[in-house]
This record gives sequence, structure tokens and C-alpha cells, in this order.
Amino acid sequence: MLMKSPVKKAEKSTQPLLVIGTVAVDSVETPFGKREECFGGSASYFSYSASFFTPVRLVAVVGKDFPGQYRKVLEERNINLEGLQVHPTGKTFRWKGKYDFDLNNAQTLETHLNVLLEFDPVVKGGDQVDFLFLANFDPALQMKVLKQVDRPRVKLAALDTMNFWIQNKPKDLKAVIEHVDLIVLNDGETRQLTGENNLIKAARKIREMGPDIIVVKKGEHGVLLFFRDQFFVLPAFPLESVFDPTGAGDTFAGGMMGYISKQGTVTFDTLKKAVAYGSVMASFAVEKFSLDRLRELKQADIEERLAEFRALTKF
Amino acid sequence: MLMKSPVKKAEKSTQPLLVIGTVAVDSVETPFGKREECFGGSASYFSYSASFFTPVRLVAVVGKDFPGQYRKVLEERNINLEGLQVHPTGKTFRWKGKYDFDLNNAQTLETHLNVLLEFDPVVKGGDQVDFLFLANFDPALQMKVLKQVDRPRVKLAALDTMNFWIQNKPKDLKAVIEHVDLIVLNDGETRQLTGENNLIKAARKIREMGPDIIVVKKGEHGVLLFFRDQFFVLPAFPLESVFDPTGAGDTFAGGMMGYISKQGTVTFDTLKKAVAYGSVMASFAVEKFSLDRLRELKQADIEERLAEFRALTKF
Repeated sequence: MLMKSPVKKAEKSTQPLLVIGTVAVDSVETPFGKREECFGGSASYFSYSASFFTPVRLVAVVGKDFPGQYRKVLEERNINLEGLQVHPTGKTFRWKGKYDFDLNNAQTLETHLNVLLEFDPVVKGGDQVDFLFLANFDPALQMKVLKQVDRPRVKLAALDTMNFWIQNKPKDLKAVIEHVDLIVLNDGETRQLTGENNLIKAARKIREMGPDIIVVKKGEHGVLLFFRDQFFVLPAFPLESVFDPTGAGDTFAGGMMGYISKQGTVTFDTLKKAVAYGSVMASFAVEKFSLDRLRELKQADIEERLAEFRALTKF
Repeated sequence: MLMKSPVKKAEKSTQPLLVIGTVAVDSVETPFGKREECFGGSASYFSYSASFFTPVRLVAVVGKDFPGQYRKVLEERNINLEGLQVHPTGKTFRWKGKYDFDLNNAQTLETHLNVLLEFDPVVKGGDQVDFLFLANFDPALQMKVLKQVDRPRVKLAALDTMNFWIQNKPKDLKAVIEHVDLIVLNDGETRQLTGENNLIKAARKIREMGPDIIVVKKGEHGVLLFFRDQFFVLPAFPLESVFDPTGAGDTFAGGMMGYISKQGTVTFDTLKKAVAYGSVMASFAVEKFSLDRLRELKQADIEERLAEFRALTKF
């Protein structure tokens, strides 16, 4: 089941994209304001963003205190919530963070894992998954999910992670990296994972670990995409006001994976456009707190900003 | 004479680009090696780079110890050295610096201004200047140069500066900024000059100080170009090995100004391509010590890398 399939061209997918990650209640403070108990979590941002491109299934866990209005936010985008477990007694995962003026680094003030502590992800219909996104999570659990899907069927299995797992669970992490097609990391994580300062050399090292596709996020400085021996560079969409960077990475990944799923095949051209769509989605997400800006979005806004982005970068 | 002329479209220029800056002897240490007493200086890098696009005149000063072989390097590119003063007794400006592994910041170990201490720039044929680049220097001297050219004739007057002048000579600096069309700064300097963290907002503030064109260099993260109300973003040309970043900024400016001078007119389209050519030239410069890599360059190498750059960034 764990055999890694080559990235393949295949018929248009009719199956949804599956994401496993967190659904959270966040409290966020930025230089521009603060918000208590707002909607957050990697799987929330990811699935909301991806839903503009393709049908999405979400696997996550919440507590019995999870606000109905937040569930409704996802339902309104037709996100399949059959895989959203509701713990009968526990509380929803909570994160409290603060950003300084440069907005590049979140300072975590509080983390209450709550129901995440005993989360045992269950994927129903694992033989129906074409595109899979393992959001940042304990790599042992990411592996558990990977084992529940029909891996040879999956056209693209993608992984996100963070410094904590690179440092504390390197063995588990490398095991799961070996079995995915795409990994998304920020520049610091890329260097940490490989011990290599130059990102091109670092990407080559990661490729030797397994994935054919490496996406390096550099925040306000854009993205590097490596696909086998080819690569692509994209600046970030320039914004005059970044209000709240929470969820930018997950929104980026959602736009990227959503676009790839919609195309149904994995080519370099598709990947380049996917990364551009991801950047556009992230540029919206950071303009307001929580998912607020994404909730106002219309399909036309996305296409308009993509066109603007193209004009801004063409010479 | 100091009236600022609007950026104007004009007939193809036949006059050379003039640069005033330093010609230096550098000693550089990087994680990859070290080099004593090699050829350097802002005007050297600038003029060498620009010479691939347009005729260049250089105004600078050296000591009587200035190596003939370094003068020859510039002469081989037909750079007009009539404005290169040779001090009868003094020594050439010397800089000694070191880079750590991230290669982003030079640590200055020694600076011997030597002949720069009494440099009094003289521009002969100041009524024949169409394009002017004031490399990083004491803003009072930059102003002195500006007063020696026929400002209304100059199609584009451009300025570089650094943190030292922003901090220690803000009044002189603002006086000269007011009278140029283009300013080139790195991201840190842009924030320092304006007290504004967001680069788009910062550029707007700088525009209010005078220049219509603001070029913000972000090193390995690329360039932002602001032209009146429009802007353009370009990632850096991605390099696997950066060997020695010395002179990258001046080489960038040389390519940019050289290309603009060659076109003879200042349009947004020309500026975008100019910034791309500048980035390409800088990407070569950092591949070896001193001007070594530039000295190997052929015109075709430049066009080839520009085409590669375009492919790398297009989606």
C-alpha cells in the first residue's frame, strides 16, 4: 500500500481532494488589532481555499465546544465534513499567537492541544483519494493517514511540516517524506531539514529523500518550486497592508492543491500555475483576520488578481 | 541648473552614461576563499557592467599606487577614463571585508579612504551628459556633481546611497534625493530612510521626496521597481553558488542604467527590462571574486541568461 507511485498523467479526476489537518479556535494579536476565539486551523484554511477550485474532503477532529457557526462556514463552501470527528467530551484545539511589526514570525503565546492529544485519524473511502494533503502534524499520524489511502491510486500526495517535527521527530518525518510526491516548507525549515543554506542545493537533497516536487515558501519574498530537474521562481503578490498572516501557508497550499486537483494531472506547467494561484489565495487571506477575507471572495476576484500578478511580474 | 526635469521621452542618445563613484582595491574573505588587493569599487563594477550596453564615462579618483593592470581592465571595455583623477602622492581607497555563510551581509574589517578624503569631483563636458549615476558616496559630493551637469538635459539622474549617509547626513542626502529621477536602495535602507516597514508605503514616501522611480533591492529575494503609480516585482536569478557578493549592487545598477541609456528613453517597459538585465549582470558578478566573472562574459551569455530568467519566472 505504501509503494510510492510515479507522478502520473491520468484522466480528469472526479474524486475530491482530501486534507488532514487541524480545525482550531485561534486568538490572534497583530500590530493592527486583536481577535479572540476566531476560526482557524490548517485544514480550515486549506479546505476553504481549495474549495474555490475543486471539491474537498476534510479529516480532522474538534471538541464538543466547536461553534456551529464555524462548521457552517465550511459547509457553505460544500466542503465534505464526514471525516470531521467530534470528540464527545474534549475541547477544540486552541492556539494563541502574536505578531510583531515585521509580521514574518508568529510568537506562540499558548497552545492547547486538547482533542488533538488523542486524535486517531480515520480515512473512510481511502480508495477514492486522488489528491492528498497532509497538513502540518505529527509525522507518525501523517503516516497513519498515508497507510489508509490506496497510495498507487493517489496522483499527488503532499506534505507540510514544521521546525518542531524536524527537530524532535526526524525519523518519523523522514519516513513519511519518503512516501510523498510533494513537500511544502518555508525557507528556514528547508535549511533546517537539509543543513544546507543554499535553497537550490537544499531542494536537491530533499529530492533524494523522496519527493519529486519541492515547494519552498519565502513569505513576503515569494516561492521557489522545484520539479525534478526544473525550477521556477515567483515573488509574492506585493501587498500594501498585511493584516494577519495566520493561515497564509495553509491557504497557499489549499489554492495550489485545489488547482492541481482541478487540472487532474501533474505537469510542470500545472505546478507553476498552481503555485501562482496559491500565492494569490494567500495574498487575500492575510488582508483580514481569520478566514474573513476568504469568505468575501468571488471566483472573479481570484482570476482578476492572478491577471494582475502576471502583469506585475512580466518583463 | 538644479531644476529637476520631468522624465522625458527623447531621441536616441549618442552621449555616454556618466558614473561617479569609487575605484578601489579590495581584500575580501568569503566562506569559499579569500583574495587580497583585488580590483573593486562602485564605479568599477558599475562601469564594467554598463559597458556591455552603452558607452560609459567614469569620474573617480585613485592614488599613484593604482595598479596599471586594473586600469587596463576598464580600458579593455572602452570605458572613458578621462575623468579618473590620479592623486600625485596619495594611496587608492582600500576596503577589506568578510562574509559569513549566509552571504547577505558584509562585515567591514578595514576602510582606508586615502585619496577619497580630499576627492573633489570634476565633471568635464557636464553639458554632454544624458544619463547620470551617482554611486554611493557622500551626498554633499553627489550634489556637487549634480551641479556640474546640465540637469534639464539629463534624461535620467540616478542615485545610490547607504545606511551611513541616511543616519549621519540626512539633510544633505534629502537635498540630493530631491533632484534625482531614480533612487536605488536595499530594503533595509528603504525602511531606514522612511521609517516605514511596508515597502510599497515606503516607496510612496520616497516618491514624495522627489524621485519618480524607486528601485528596492532585496538581495537574493529580488527587486521591486516603482515607477510613478505603477510597480513591478522580480525575483533574483536563482544561483546555486554565490561565491562573492561584493559589487553585486553596483553591477546591478550598471546593467540597469546601461540598458536604459542604450534605449535612450525612460518608459515603464524599458525600466522593467533594465531591472531584469541588472539582475542578470549581478548574478554573474557574484559567481567569482572581484570582476573576474564579468571579465569572462560575452554578450551572448547575457542574452542567454536573460532568456533563462524569463523562462524561470513565467507562468
